[in-house]
Amino acid sequence: MEYKQLTEDSVVDYLKSVPAAKEVLGDLDNLDIREIGDGNLNFVYFITNKSDPTQTAVLKQAVPFLRIVGKDWPLPKERMTFEIMALENESDLTPEHVPEIFHSSHDMSLVLMQNLKDYPVLRGQMNEGKYFPNLAEHVSTFLAKNLFYTSDWYLDHRTKKEMVKKFINIDLCKITEDFIFTHPFCKSDTNAYNERLTEKDINFIHEDDELKIHQAELKYKFMNNAEALLHGDLHTGSIMADAEKTYVIDPEFAFFGPAGFDVALFIGNMFLAYFAHAHRQTLLGNDPSEYRTWILDQIRETWNKFEVKFESYWKEHFEAEKDLFWDYPGGEKAHAEYRRRNIARIFDDAMGIAGSVMIRRILGLAKVSDIADIEDLDARAEVERMGLRMGRELIINHTKYTTIEAVADLATGISPADQAVPASSAT
Amino acid sequence: MEYKQLTEDSVVDYLKSVPAAKEVLGDLDNLDIREIGDGNLNFVYFITNKSDPTQTAVLKQAVPFLRIVGKDWPLPKERMTFEIMALENESDLTPEHVPEIFHSSHDMSLVLMQNLKDYPVLRGQMNEGKYFPNLAEHVSTFLAKNLFYTSDWYLDHRTKKEMVKKFINIDLCKITEDFIFTHPFCKSDTNAYNERLTEKDINFIHEDDELKIHQAELKYKFMNNAEALLHGDLHTGSIMADAEKTYVIDPEFAFFGPAGFDVALFIGNMFLAYFAHAHRQTLLGNDPSEYRTWILDQIRETWNKFEVKFESYWKEHFEAEKDLFWDYPGGEKAHAEYRRRNIARIFDDAMGIAGSVMIRRILGLAKVSDIADIEDLDARAEVERMGLRMGRELIINHTKYTTIEAVADLATGISPADQAVPASSAT
Repeated sequence: MEYKQLTEDSVVDYLKSVPAAKEVLGDLDNLDIREIGDGNLNFVYFITNKSDPTQTAVLKQAVPFLRIVGKDWPLPKERMTFEIMALENESDLTPEHVPEIFHSSHDMSLVLMQNLKDYPVLRGQMNEGKYFPNLAEHVSTFLAKNLFYTSDWYLDHRTKKEMVKKFINIDLCKITEDFIFTHPFCKSDTNAYNERLTEKDINFIHEDDELKIHQAELKYKFMNNAEALLHGDLHTGSIMADAEKTYVIDPEFAFFGPAGFDVALFIGNMFLAYFAHAHRQTLLGNDPSEYRTWILDQIRETWNKFEVKFESYWKEHFEAEKDLFWDYPGGEKAHAEYRRRNIARIFDDAMGIAGSVMIRRILGLAKVSDIADIEDLDARAEVERMGLRMGRELIINHTKYTTIEAVADLATGISPADQAVPASSAT
Repeated sequence: MEYKQLTEDSVVDYLKSVPAAKEVLGDLDNLDIREIGDGNLNFVYFITNKSDPTQTAVLKQAVPFLRIVGKDWPLPKERMTFEIMALENESDLTPEHVPEIFHSSHDMSLVLMQNLKDYPVLRGQMNEGKYFPNLAEHVSTFLAKNLFYTSDWYLDHRTKKEMVKKFINIDLCKITEDFIFTHPFCKSDTNAYNERLTEKDINFIHEDDELKIHQAELKYKFMNNAEALLHGDLHTGSIMADAEKTYVIDPEFAFFGPAGFDVALFIGNMFLAYFAHAHRQTLLGNDPSEYRTWILDQIRETWNKFEVKFESYWKEHFEAEKDLFWDYPGGEKAHAEYRRRNIARIFDDAMGIAGSVMIRRILGLAKVSDIADIEDLDARAEVERMGLRMGRELIINHTKYTTIEAVADLATGISPADQAVPASSAT
């Protein structure tokens, strides 16, 4: 089928050509179709049977430009091909944490999938101070399964390399290279600053030799290290959840990169929420410590559970595989140490990149509502300075933090301040 | 054109369909055609005009199996596609160090190229103790240009990723993964040992925890780090040279991997020659020190010249590019430091992998004539033990050796011994 951009009016005609649509939605002549328009990149339609609201689905279609900017910013609609392929892969590994796919079409750059309307976006709910008792458990499973089972430690050499080839995702990687790893760290026109941040706050990031060198190294690692199939955009805005269930959506940035990257996106965003709630909780009339403690607990638990799960999948595979290379007296112990060192290296990558993620959400184009929606710009700047200070420390010194507890302690040690530059290192 | 395996008899008919052939060879009805059969993988024909020997070319054709084993070992003939693409790339960057290509066909899996019969294979000539005054100069240029100009430090993001995709070389990478990084380090049936090596010598490699862990990490880096377009098989048997000129041939293993890999192959093989000549020079009636000193000089010079050239191409590109990221007071100095650290990291990768390369040529299937042709098996074992000892040290401790001088000193400190295990660490 030749590509055609759908509209609210033409969606029904398309659905009539899709056998799965009738199964899911029932009477295709009795549908409520609404374009919800909350994506930056794509068109998303909520489709519901008017007589039976349980018969519902979401149709997501990519258009050949960046929706938020318009036709002047071309972006290949083939990004949906990556999203479909990644969703299929994640559905195999972690079906409980991704929307069910009813139908997909590479030609039409669209996917028809489970409507998750009962599971709002995590970021918005966290902004309101909601708790999610299963968050760390679920996110750690999603991360550990999707990362381990797409690495060379599990896949055979041919499958892995064929997947790497299939997932070379040039255009969306470029967005990450620019907007996470480059622009926020220099005087780019694409940046946007809270006007209460001072030049000194900003140059604390833009003109620090060690930070620049380490930041360039993190970007190089992102561009060169085809370790595991990443979601590629796993922040708290890509998670939909309630107290029981957790879904990860929107994997159009999927490609093979360093395993720590997805961990970094989630944890970096959680630390931003942690700093934001130093202010947000006072607005909600609460002592901030309770919710902030919960956030830190989730961060620690997510990593600690990830580590345990990743190691257990690996150990299980190792024991089943009986690799001749490790078959010698002591080989089992040596392999355990090999696993330990690699998981420590993934942690190290993740903490460095988490620093980049935190800073880019403060100085770069794409903000997080956790912070950017704080109306009191001075209060917002205080939060931002905490994020800048922690991000900088992680980028430069990530190798010095070998446990998530040490990183959490770093966060708790950073208080609202009137400048990002710590007094001790101010020049 | 549909693929057809050529023979001495059918080569002429094929050449008559190739316009370039007449230009190079003149009268196509007056050719001497000889299959020289010295490749393990392919068929190689020397083609010469009987009336004018200066009108000559080589035709190399891949067959869909491993020639040295036969049709029972299938190996996709599409490997020639990688060789052609790599030759074309190397011809753009270092035309003076690769054979001129007259014609190539992906369908027929063949290439018609310059006949380098006046430039014998380097390894054989070094076995005879010949000197090559330009070797380090030429090899360092080949390495520095081909590695720098195919990295993300030079290429734009799109070109690089499209090239990575095009050069995913599954089958030939698997040969390297198995025969360089895995089999020689365990009790694989594919290994072949000099019968005078003891079980203790072999287990010094096969059952050492730290060596196994580091070796597994080097293999993982090879499989995951798509840094630069590698030749992939750059040992002294892939170089043809005389005193003036140096050609690098046979890049069918080309793919994007860690830049240090090609450096490692060359330097690792040179160290094997260095150890071999402890014995070979005595057979030639010489004091070994002169030729061995020359080999060490070449090793040191190759790295030191590589480092200077790689850095100068990078600096030149950096100055022309005016990257906003580094455009701040002190940015130029910071970028110099970034370059320095990355070149040091390439050196570190190279020294670790050189250790693997040395050991695989001693315990693995594919030997080097430098050592394997030593008829006195006890003398050969003495040479092999030196290689094993140095290889092991580099695999485990490569990060401790930060200069090529220190690595050369490591080699000179290793003397012929009756066991690979140093007395101090024998258990």
